[in-house]
Amino acid sequence: MPLTVEPWTLREPTLDVDDLPRTAALLTVANGHLGVRGVLEEQRPAVAGGTLLAPVYERHPHDYPEPAYGYPDHDERLEPVVDACGVDLEVDGEPLDVRTGSLEHHERRLHLRTGVLEREAVWTSPGGTPVEVRTRRWVSLVRRELVVTAYEVRAPQGARVRVRVVPGCPGPGGAPGRGADGSAGPGLVSEACGHDAGRTWVAQRTVLAGVGVVLATEHDVTAGDGVVHGWTQDAHGWVLDADLPPGGWVRLAGRAAYACGRRPVEGLLADARTVLADAERAGEDRLEAEHRAFLDDVWERADVVVEGDDELQQAVRLAVLHTVQAAARVEGTGLRAKGLTGLGYHGHTFWDAEGFVLPVLDHVLPHASAAHLRWRHATLPRAVERARTLGLPGAAFPWRTISGEECSGYWPASTAAVHVTADVTDALVRHVAATGDDALEQEVGVDLLVHGARFWMGRGHHDDDGAFHVHGVTGPDEYTAVVDDNTYTNLVVARSLEAAVRVTARWPHEARRLGVDDDERARWAAAAAAVVVPYAADLGVTEQSAGFTRRPRWDFARVPDGWTPFEDRVHYTELYRHQLVKQADLVLALVVAGDRFTADQKRRDFAYYEPLTVRDSSLSASVQAVVAAELGHLTLAHRYTRECAFIDLHDLRHETQEGVHVASMAGAWDALVRGFGGLRLDHGHVRVGPRLPPGISRLRFRVRVDGSHVEVDARRDGVTYRLLAGERVVLRHEDEELTLSPDAPQVERELVPVAEPTPPRQPPGREPRG
Amino acid sequence: MPLTVEPWTLREPTLDVDDLPRTAALLTVANGHLGVRGVLEEQRPAVAGGTLLAPVYERHPHDYPEPAYGYPDHDERLEPVVDACGVDLEVDGEPLDVRTGSLEHHERRLHLRTGVLEREAVWTSPGGTPVEVRTRRWVSLVRRELVVTAYEVRAPQGARVRVRVVPGCPGPGGAPGRGADGSAGPGLVSEACGHDAGRTWVAQRTVLAGVGVVLATEHDVTAGDGVVHGWTQDAHGWVLDADLPPGGWVRLAGRAAYACGRRPVEGLLADARTVLADAERAGEDRLEAEHRAFLDDVWERADVVVEGDDELQQAVRLAVLHTVQAAARVEGTGLRAKGLTGLGYHGHTFWDAEGFVLPVLDHVLPHASAAHLRWRHATLPRAVERARTLGLPGAAFPWRTISGEECSGYWPASTAAVHVTADVTDALVRHVAATGDDALEQEVGVDLLVHGARFWMGRGHHDDDGAFHVHGVTGPDEYTAVVDDNTYTNLVVARSLEAAVRVTARWPHEARRLGVDDDERARWAAAAAAVVVPYAADLGVTEQSAGFTRRPRWDFARVPDGWTPFEDRVHYTELYRHQLVKQADLVLALVVAGDRFTADQKRRDFAYYEPLTVRDSSLSASVQAVVAAELGHLTLAHRYTRECAFIDLHDLRHETQEGVHVASMAGAWDALVRGFGGLRLDHGHVRVGPRLPPGISRLRFRVRVDGSHVEVDARRDGVTYRLLAGERVVLRHEDEELTLSPDAPQVERELVPVAEPTPPRQPPGREPRG
Repeated sequence: MPLTVEPWTLREPTLDVDDLPRTAALLTVANGHLGVRGVLEEQRPAVAGGTLLAPVYERHPHDYPEPAYGYPDHDERLEPVVDACGVDLEVDGEPLDVRTGSLEHHERRLHLRTGVLEREAVWTSPGGTPVEVRTRRWVSLVRRELVVTAYEVRAPQGARVRVRVVPGCPGPGGAPGRGADGSAGPGLVSEACGHDAGRTWVAQRTVLAGVGVVLATEHDVTAGDGVVHGWTQDAHGWVLDADLPPGGWVRLAGRAAYACGRRPVEGLLADARTVLADAERAGEDRLEAEHRAFLDDVWERADVVVEGDDELQQAVRLAVLHTVQAAARVEGTGLRAKGLTGLGYHGHTFWDAEGFVLPVLDHVLPHASAAHLRWRHATLPRAVERARTLGLPGAAFPWRTISGEECSGYWPASTAAVHVTADVTDALVRHVAATGDDALEQEVGVDLLVHGARFWMGRGHHDDDGAFHVHGVTGPDEYTAVVDDNTYTNLVVARSLEAAVRVTARWPHEARRLGVDDDERARWAAAAAAVVVPYAADLGVTEQSAGFTRRPRWDFARVPDGWTPFEDRVHYTELYRHQLVKQADLVLALVVAGDRFTADQKRRDFAYYEPLTVRDSSLSASVQAVVAAELGHLTLAHRYTRECAFIDLHDLRHETQEGVHVASMAGAWDALVRGFGGLRLDHGHVRVGPRLPPGISRLRFRVRVDGSHVEVDARRDGVTYRLLAGERVVLRHEDEELTLSPDAPQVERELVPVAEPTPPRQPPGREPRG
Repeated sequence: MPLTVEPWTLREPTLDVDDLPRTAALLTVANGHLGVRGVLEEQRPAVAGGTLLAPVYERHPHDYPEPAYGYPDHDERLEPVVDACGVDLEVDGEPLDVRTGSLEHHERRLHLRTGVLEREAVWTSPGGTPVEVRTRRWVSLVRRELVVTAYEVRAPQGARVRVRVVPGCPGPGGAPGRGADGSAGPGLVSEACGHDAGRTWVAQRTVLAGVGVVLATEHDVTAGDGVVHGWTQDAHGWVLDADLPPGGWVRLAGRAAYACGRRPVEGLLADARTVLADAERAGEDRLEAEHRAFLDDVWERADVVVEGDDELQQAVRLAVLHTVQAAARVEGTGLRAKGLTGLGYHGHTFWDAEGFVLPVLDHVLPHASAAHLRWRHATLPRAVERARTLGLPGAAFPWRTISGEECSGYWPASTAAVHVTADVTDALVRHVAATGDDALEQEVGVDLLVHGARFWMGRGHHDDDGAFHVHGVTGPDEYTAVVDDNTYTNLVVARSLEAAVRVTARWPHEARRLGVDDDERARWAAAAAAVVVPYAADLGVTEQSAGFTRRPRWDFARVPDGWTPFEDRVHYTELYRHQLVKQADLVLALVVAGDRFTADQKRRDFAYYEPLTVRDSSLSASVQAVVAAELGHLTLAHRYTRECAFIDLHDLRHETQEGVHVASMAGAWDALVRGFGGLRLDHGHVRVGPRLPPGISRLRFRVRVDGSHVEVDARRDGVTYRLLAGERVVLRHEDEELTLSPDAPQVERELVPVAEPTPPRQPPGREPRG
């Protein structure tokens, strides 16, 4: 992709039509509720899924060759809705199609600071008529139903051009399938529509899930001197015809509102019209000002300054923007693995929301983190039902879902991956530690933690010696499944149980309401204290799971080199029985439960697992970066950080067309802040200890600590700690305790130099790609 | 089911229409190649799948919610073909339908000694016309394409009856499905047909697998005095009209031949007509005589006399007949789990053919055992291809198949259940030991064993201490999956490797052709000697797999009592992590590799696993019977034997409508012979030691030992050993060595009395049902 390196812009200076599916993902503007992908307004060529709404999904029945008890009976899939930004343009009767005629100039710019996508095209039709087109679009981060668009056509000097502009060109929408018996199958169908000059509305609904959506649009027309224009109605709706004298222009300023839910069309239409009326009252300037203010506030908290690596500087800002666009307005839905940038993973939410994105949102957009956790809490009845299906107490959160119901059709990598339930509660605990949000802890935290703890007491067991085990689980590493005592799982379970004990003590009323008594809390505490961490004494290495280090090692000569995922060429029976690690698992435990390991143990563990870890998952490089940085492998950490940051910008996994990797994007920020920044929030203590690799000369970031806001600015010549807002904060810089307070808000320290040890090797051909 | 207890007949004295799907399975006549289920000739009510041909299957594409590398892309399913025994009868214009009018008498008898099914019905039509019908059918065990039928209609004294007989009423055949794109989907379609008076033919073909089948029929008409009859042609084909005076009768004697294969209709039709012409030349009497001679020979070898338990006596004879009917003519196909008695398991072959049926066939029908093993050998290229897909050397036999290709859509219970490959080779070794069939060993044995051994060397591994492990496998117990070092698997793997060493030494030419050298043989021997048998020293118990005894026990209070299989109400994640055993697994190892365990160890192991084993598989009771008998729990063994023998006769699993459990049927014989008979063939030594439980006063059976034929006749007052045919045989009776020879063919000994120890308990509600 021919994208330039610029600090605050993602600029595509020329159009590569074959790249459109990928740039559609990268150039998405979204707010977590509504996403408009970077498709061309004219949809020529058509790119699927131009507009995605987080609540609009369909149920697709699962078909199993060998069904079994407790298998989810349907999948849920995000269904693309009708596009609000679609525009069809005819130039002297010829449709604008960048693949025909002559495209003299085409540039698109996603402004990272403002979240606005702009496009400029200079095109000459096959018939020889030249025209200039400028478009603009953004999705409000404040009014989550609102898309604002502009489409401007201009005749060049010296040419007179007749144009027809057809707004609301639907683009490729969903079509309903058919069941084997001819009944209406899954899909999105249009229910009703209405048109008027400059105004349209369309109602759609998913057939089986019954989620309705109404899009209502309004377009204001302005034009330059001498332009004759007017709306007329033809067979397809209302169209705008304009005669442009040389240099003349016409501009359609569009506002579009989506309303959705399981309600009749009338109600949805009324809601969409209310949003439009409010937007019209506010006016274009105020709408954009409030949207920009939202983002200014984000950048104030979120921006990471990286000097010395301009590519990484741009990439981490793109990463922050995409993280924010995936998360900002997830109230009532939940953060999706691909955000709203594509249809990959069917639009599902996975554990990486809690494991990789929320730790970043806690600092850059805490309300989104809270909204996601409140959504999880809203799905608790379904998680309770799922646990009941499994014959277990408490709640079992789904591996992949839109509505909160388990959708996975492959249990060894889903229902067995019980850690997702602990990831949810751990995210809550971390969020409260970062933000001091007691209300969230009281309102949803107690409930989540108690249900989680009860699940663990059923899912795990004490052996005859009292040790607490969790058997038959799949940890983060998806190349090792259905094992006993996965260390990562056991340690997050222990954290979950400890937190349940602590939080039920803080909120005795809520705990009593849930029937928690001292006996139950004592059992949780005992289990947490007795949790097993398998250890290979002969190797001095923590085991990823019981017996892991006694498995045969993978013979890397068995299959040809290259980045094709092993799972695409090796059967599960072979993958699972070897010491082949898809993604950080034990190494993730070194981060998430870092206080359980000595520095020396971490060194041995990282050295052991690094040559086994093939990184076929995008949920790995950021974790490896953080641990590498902690252990002084700064150059290696820098390369992992770049891999993580470039995953979509360089399309490293050849799947960006399905949407960006939000967790990897968030991971880029995390790799810088937790990795090079050395930030750790453990047991209420805040540790920092910035280190700069040779390729980075300055790193500045800001984090939240118990509600206060602290800046860390690391340069070769020293580190500056600044309290930007809030109360007194105590930080541990290396071995020293520093206090920042409103009276003495700034402290300077030396940057501790690091002698890089010899780094461990990766599997053949699997060195970091940054 | 209202079936009487008789020594040589399965008699249904009255018709229960609701029972038809079950009696259709039990009253099947078949020869392993062709099966005609016990459906009523008129197919009113219709029962699906009247006629099954082992080679006629269809490919049905698999649809996976989450596909992965190496998953089989299609299933194979036996497709019912057009019925040869179908007859439509009109009585004074009204169709014979046992659900209408008045059924004064209805009896069906399956003659166990002859494999002939007879039916008598006395019926009065709704219009008041009485009629008597007698039918008869059998499937030749000698001419495998041939079905012989008779349909006789008689007017009672005092009534004149006009009847129309329409032979070849097709009954419910298959219909092709349709793909999502409207293309012809999987199914069986009719290609062509032809009719003449008393002769018809129909050609069908499976759409995707392309297997063609032609049925050709001939009917001879005879009639009593005063009967006017004649063929006429109507819109549907040729029909026989007859006017029956009081007491008059008309009889259609039918011969039908099925030819099938991937060939054009013309060739198939020619083959079918050749079979009919040969049959006509032979004449009805000779056809039946040769068929009876085949069965007489079977009974000479196979009959087990059980005195004192008449129900069991009948059941074991039915079991032998069904085993023979499933196996007799499996040349080129393979023995199916349900024989040809129903569509359960889609008509697939599983490991129970080798594990449960062949050990019996080795004694009662050795050529069928050999034919099945030759079929396995013929599928070796597919097993080699499957191993290659798994990235492994040698051959991996499929878990379930018709053609030899793996069909399972659930790998943890199939591709992980690698023991099937060792079961195949172990069956071969046992077969040669029982029959002395050196040609089979040379022609297919070496090849199978070498490919098996090479698979194991790739699938298993030596650890740093040299011990040989097989990781990530599923043993026989399907409630425990993907574990390390399943004892049963490891021991059959060791047997397979040892046999490969031995047999390649016997057949050096064949071994050299396969590239086997001394180094490779030494590696096999070393692996076999080093195979791991996990042992729980604290409990003094052999582990079913590594760590099994350290899993939590199942809490039987968790789900309600009853025989509903646990897998129908418990999720795999919960089943797999507990000590819950679906079927004999470690206990099967005690039988198959009995020489690896001391008597004391067997006692401890049986006592440990018995309370964990819920017997949700039909592949368990016979094994438990054998081990219980060996350990002196004779009453318990008797009950297990009865459960095994009654599984279909009493429809204990509520699934007999899908076909009988051939392995369980064979298991009934095995429970008597290996269990109470005490027969063991280990390392060329033959041990016997009959024991009689209180409920059985005499047990007589015959077995093959290295090609000789020996009778064992145990009564309370003593045991008689007789050499019936063949050379000198040395038997170990208890601790004594006995020699039988043509000169001294008979020896008498005391029956050793057994004091029954206190038996172990089964899980609550899971006591044997015999």
